[in-house]
Amino acid sequence: MVDVTPKDPTHRRALARCRVHMQPETTAKVASNAITKGDVLAVSRVAGIQAAKQAAQLIPLCHPLLVGAVTINFTIGDDYVEVETQVETVDRTGVEMEALTGCAVAALTIYDMCKSFDRAMVIGDLALWEKTGGRSGNWRREATTILAPGPSEASRPRPIEEEIDGLIGNDQLGFER
Amino acid sequence: MVDVTPKDPTHRRALARCRVHMQPETTAKVASNAITKGDVLAVSRVAGIQAAKQAAQLIPLCHPLLVGAVTINFTIGDDYVEVETQVETVDRTGVEMEALTGCAVAALTIYDMCKSFDRAMVIGDLALWEKTGGRSGNWRREATTILAPGPSEASRPRPIEEEIDGLIGNDQLGFER
Amino acid sequence: MVDVTPKDPTHRRALARCRVHMQPETTAKVASNAITKGDVLAVSRVAGIQAAKQAAQLIPLCHPLLVGAVTINFTIGDDYVEVETQVETVDRTGVEMEALTGCAVAALTIYDMCKSFDRAMVIGDLALWEKTGGRSGNWRREATTILAPGPSEASRPRPIEEEIDGLIGNDQLGFER
Amino acid sequence: MVDVTPKDPTHRRALARCRVHMQPETTAKVASNAITKGDVLAVSRVAGIQAAKQAAQLIPLCHPLLVGAVTINFTIGDDYVEVETQVETVDRTGVEMEALTGCAVAALTIYDMCKSFDRAMVIGDLALWEKTGGRSGNWRREATTILAPGPSEASRPRPIEEEIDGLIGNDQLGFER
Amino acid sequence: MVDVTPKDPTHRRALARCRVHMQPETTAKVASNAITKGDVLAVSRVAGIQAAKQAAQLIPLCHPLLVGAVTINFTIGDDYVEVETQVETVDRTGVEMEALTGCAVAALTIYDMCKSFDRAMVIGDLALWEKTGGRSGNWRREATTILAPGPSEASRPRPIEEEIDGLIGNDQLGFER
Amino acid sequence: MVDVTPKDPTHRRALARCRVHMQPETTAKVASNAITKGDVLAVSRVAGIQAAKQAAQLIPLCHPLLVGAVTINFTIGDDYVEVETQVETVDRTGVEMEALTGCAVAALTIYDMCKSFDRAMVIGDLALWEKTGGRSGNWRREATTILAPGPSEASRPRPIEEEIDGLIGNDQLGFER
Repeated sequence: MVDVTPKDPTHRRALARCRVHMQPETTAKVASNAITKGDVLAVSRVAGIQAAKQAAQLIPLCHPLLVGAVTINFTIGDDYVEVETQVETVDRTGVEMEALTGCAVAALTIYDMCKSFDRAMVIGDLALWEKTGGRSGNWRREATTILAPGPSEASRPRPIEEEIDGLIGNDQLGFER
Repeated sequence: MVDVTPKDPTHRRALARCRVHMQPETTAKVASNAITKGDVLAVSRVAGIQAAKQAAQLIPLCHPLLVGAVTINFTIGDDYVEVETQVETVDRTGVEMEALTGCAVAALTIYDMCKSFDRAMVIGDLALWEKTGGRSGNWRREATTILAPGPSEASRPRPIEEEIDGLIGNDQLGFER
Repeated sequence: MVDVTPKDPTHRRALARCRVHMQPETTAKVASNAITKGDVLAVSRVAGIQAAKQAAQLIPLCHPLLVGAVTINFTIGDDYVEVETQVETVDRTGVEMEALTGCAVAALTIYDMCKSFDRAMVIGDLALWEKTGGRSGNWRREATTILAPGPSEASRPRPIEEEIDGLIGNDQLGFER
Repeated sequence: MVDVTPKDPTHRRALARCRVHMQPETTAKVASNAITKGDVLAVSRVAGIQAAKQAAQLIPLCHPLLVGAVTINFTIGDDYVEVETQVETVDRTGVEMEALTGCAVAALTIYDMCKSFDRAMVIGDLALWEKTGGRSGNWRREATTILAPGPSEASRPRPIEEEIDGLIGNDQLGFER
Repeated sequence: MVDVTPKDPTHRRALARCRVHMQPETTAKVASNAITKGDVLAVSRVAGIQAAKQAAQLIPLCHPLLVGAVTINFTIGDDYVEVETQVETVDRTGVEMEALTGCAVAALTIYDMCKSFDRAMVIGDLALWEKTGGRSGNWRREATTILAPGPSEASRPRPIEEEIDGLIGNDQLGFER
Repeated sequence: MVDVTPKDPTHRRALARCRVHMQPETTAKVASNAITKGDVLAVSRVAGIQAAKQAAQLIPLCHPLLVGAVTINFTIGDDYVEVETQVETVDRTGVEMEALTGCAVAALTIYDMCKSFDRAMVIGDLALWEKTGGRSGNWRREATTILAPGPSEASRPRPIEEEIDGLIGNDQLGFER
C-alpha cells in the first residue's frame, strides 16, 4: 500500500474485460433470457457494480476510493459471454483493481446462474485494457500482448450480435477499440 | 436461489484453479519474494480465504454457508502462477462458488501486488476441477474440456518447481490428478 | 439477543410486504421498463435478496442465520409498486427480520432508481404478513390490523395487472391470501 | 449510476422520516425503557447510523460517499415512534439514500426489539422531507404530498411529548418545519 | 484454518474480558452518562455484539459460525471500565475469537467516545477467561497467569459499584469466579 | 459523530501500538515461523491493514474516511510480540481509530494463530502513541503516562532483535521515539 497522501486527486478511468466460455446452448439460453434462475445479465451487472465499489475490502493492499461511475456491458459470442467493465473516479489512486474486480465478480455470477446446465464453463482473458490518468499516465493493451488464449483469439474482431447497454454511467466509453 | 431447506446437510468439497499469466521476470520476482509491495503469495492466500468465506455476499443468488476448511496452494510456472483452491463444508448446498471466488480474489491480489511491474498480466483458466457430495453427485473436469487456453495447455503436466503448502486445512487434497 | 442455543433447528418461513407509493407516471415507467437508470425491478430484487442474507449485520440484536431461500415478487398498482418477500430457513430462530429487511431494501432501491423523476415517493405498509415454524408457532396478519394506511387500504383486493415471478426460490408461496 | 466525476464536491444535506406504528402499550414500554431486550432507542440509533454509512453497499446504483454527520432523533406518539434522520456530507452526490436507509434500518431495529410483544407493528411514511445542495438545488416536501397515510395524518402536528436528542452531529437541524 | 468438517456440532461457550484504563474524571463521566458524544456503554455494547457476529470476517483463519448468544457486561472501577463478553453457539468450532473480538471492539468504542477528553487511555488485559465445550474440553484462566498488569492486578477483587445488565442473552453467566 | 463537514481536509497521521504477551516458547515459534497454522506475522499484517480500512464499520460513531497508507511493523521480545500500526490520510477527521483498530485486529490474529499452543496469551498496552494534523494539533504520548503495565514497562527500551519491515506505506515512520 504505497502512501498516496502526497498525490493530488485527478480523474482516472480503467477498462477491463473477461470472457465466460460456455457451451453454445448455454450462450443461447443466456441470450434469450431462458435460464430458470433469472435474468443472468441483469443480476451479473448488479453483482459486478457492487463488487467494483468494494474492491478495497477484497484486495488487501488496494487503496479504498469512491467510484464515481461503473459501466458494465456484455457481448454475447457463439460460445462465450464477454464482460466489459469501466470504472471512473477522481482520486489519488487508480481504478484498475475496481474494474478487474467488477469484471471477475460479474463473470462468477454468470457462472453461478448457469452452472446447473454447464458446469464446465471457464472464465478467461481477465485483463486490463486501458487506463487513463495518474502519474504513470495512460496505458492501452496491445491485442498481441494477451497471453491466455493465444494472440489469434485476442485480436479477432469482437462479435456484435448483442451489445447490451450498460446499466449505469455514461454509455459512450470514449475508448477507441 | 433454489430452496435448499428440504435437503439434509452433507459433506461437500470443491476444487477450483486459475492461472495468472505474467512475464517470466515477474514470475521470478514472485518466486524469490522480491516484489516490493510484500510477500505476494502470503497476501494472496489470505485474500483468497477471506473471499471464499464471503462468496454469498458477492454472488447474488449464491446461498450463504459456513465453510469448514479452505486450502489455497500455488504452483509457479515459467510465466504464470497457478492458484488452486479447495473448500469443504457440511451443508445443504455445494461450495463451487466459494472455491471459484477464493481463486479469483487470490489471483486479483497477485495482479494488484505485481501490477506496477507488469500491467499486462492476464488471469485465465478459472474453472471448477472437482466437486463431491450433494444430490448431483461427484463431478470431475476432463482436461480436454477446458476451453480457454486450448486443450494442449490444460493437459500439460503441471510444473512442480515450487509447491507451496496450503495455509489452512488439510494438505493432502485427496484428489487424483 | 435471546440465547437460542437450547433450541433445535426447525423449518421456518416468513412473508413480508411493503408498498412504494409513487406518481402514476412513475408506476407506468417502472412497468414498461422505461426508467433510464436500468431495469428497476431486476435491480431491486437483487438488492432485496442480498439484504435478506445480511439482516443480522444491519439489525444489532438479530441472530445470524443462513437463509435457505429468498423469493421477491412485485405487484404493480396504479400508483404504487408492492414488494413481497418470503424467506425460508432451517434454524434455531425465525426469519421475520430477514423478510422485512429484504422488503425494505428492495423498496429503497426502487426509490433510488426512480427518484430523479419522483422525489416525493413514500414507502409504507412495511409489515410482516405470515410466519410459520418455531416455538411461538404460526401467525398470520389479519387485514384489519394494519394501521398505517387505514383498514380500507389494507383489505382492498390486490391488483393483479402484473404479477412478476420471483427470481429465486419456489414460486408457489403456499400461503393463502 | 450517473457519472458524478465531472461534478465538484459541495455541501449536501438530506432529512428523512418514518414511523413505526404499534400498540399504545408497546409505545409506553419503549418510552419507559421497559423492553426486556434492551434500550430500544439507543440500539436503534446506532443501527441507523451504521446503516447510513453503508447505504451504497445496500443500494446497488447508489454512489459511495463519506458521510460527515448523521443525526437520528425519535419522537414518541400515542401509538407510534417517529424516526428522523439527517445526513450531511461534502461530496459530488446527494445523501438522500443515506438518510432514507438510516431511517429504515433504525425502524427495523425498533421492530426487532419489540416484536415479541407486538408482532403486528407496521413501518410507514418512510419519505424524504428535505434536501439541500447539489445541482438540482433545494427541495422540501409539502405535507400534503405524502401519500401513504393520507394527507390528514401527514400534516397533523407532530407530538412533542418526548423529543430525544440525537446521538451525533449538531442538534439544531436548521430546518424549518 | 483447521478442517472442522469431521467434527460434530456441540454447545460451546467462551468468556473474555479487557479493561479500558482512563483518568478517574473520565470514568466518572462514563458512569454518569455525561460524555457529550452519547451513551458510551450502550453504544459500546452494540458495537461489541456486532463485532462478535463478524469475527470471522476480521480474523483471516477464524472459521465462520453463527453465534447463538452474545452478552456484554461492564464494570466501572476507579480508573477503568472493564468489559466482559460471553458468546455461546452450537457449532463445530469454538467461540474464543468471537468473545475476544467483541471485547476488543467494545473497548475501542469506549475509547472513541471518550477520546476528546482523555486521549491517553490504554486498553489492556484483553484475555480469554473461560471456554467450555469442544474436543479440547473446558479451560479456565488462573488469575495468576495473567501477564500484562502483573498478578496482583489480575487477582484483586473486581469492583462492584456498577454492574450493568447485559443487553442480550441470559444474565446469569453461570461461571464461578 | 461530530459534524466534520465544515472542516477542510488536511494531512493526518496516527501511530498506535500494542503487545501480545505470550510464553517464550510461543514467541520463539512465531519468530522462527514454526506455527503450523501459517506465517503468523504475514497473516496478522494483512488482517490489521484490512481492519484499519474498515474501522468506521466497526466503531459506530467513527467517521468513515479513505486511508492513504497503512504500515504495520512487528517487534519480537522475549515473551511478547509488539504490533505498531501507522495510518495516514488527507481528510476532515483523524485516523486514531483506524490505527488502534488495525493494531487490535492484528493482535487478535496473532492470538488466533497461536492459541492452540498458548491459550493464556494476553493483549495489552493498546494505546495511541502519536497523532499529527487536524485542529487539535499534534500529540505525543509520554512514556510515563501509560497505565496498564506500569511506567517501568512502558519506558524500557524496546528490543530490537527482529525488526520486520512493514508491508505497505513508507518505511521511515519519521517519528522520534
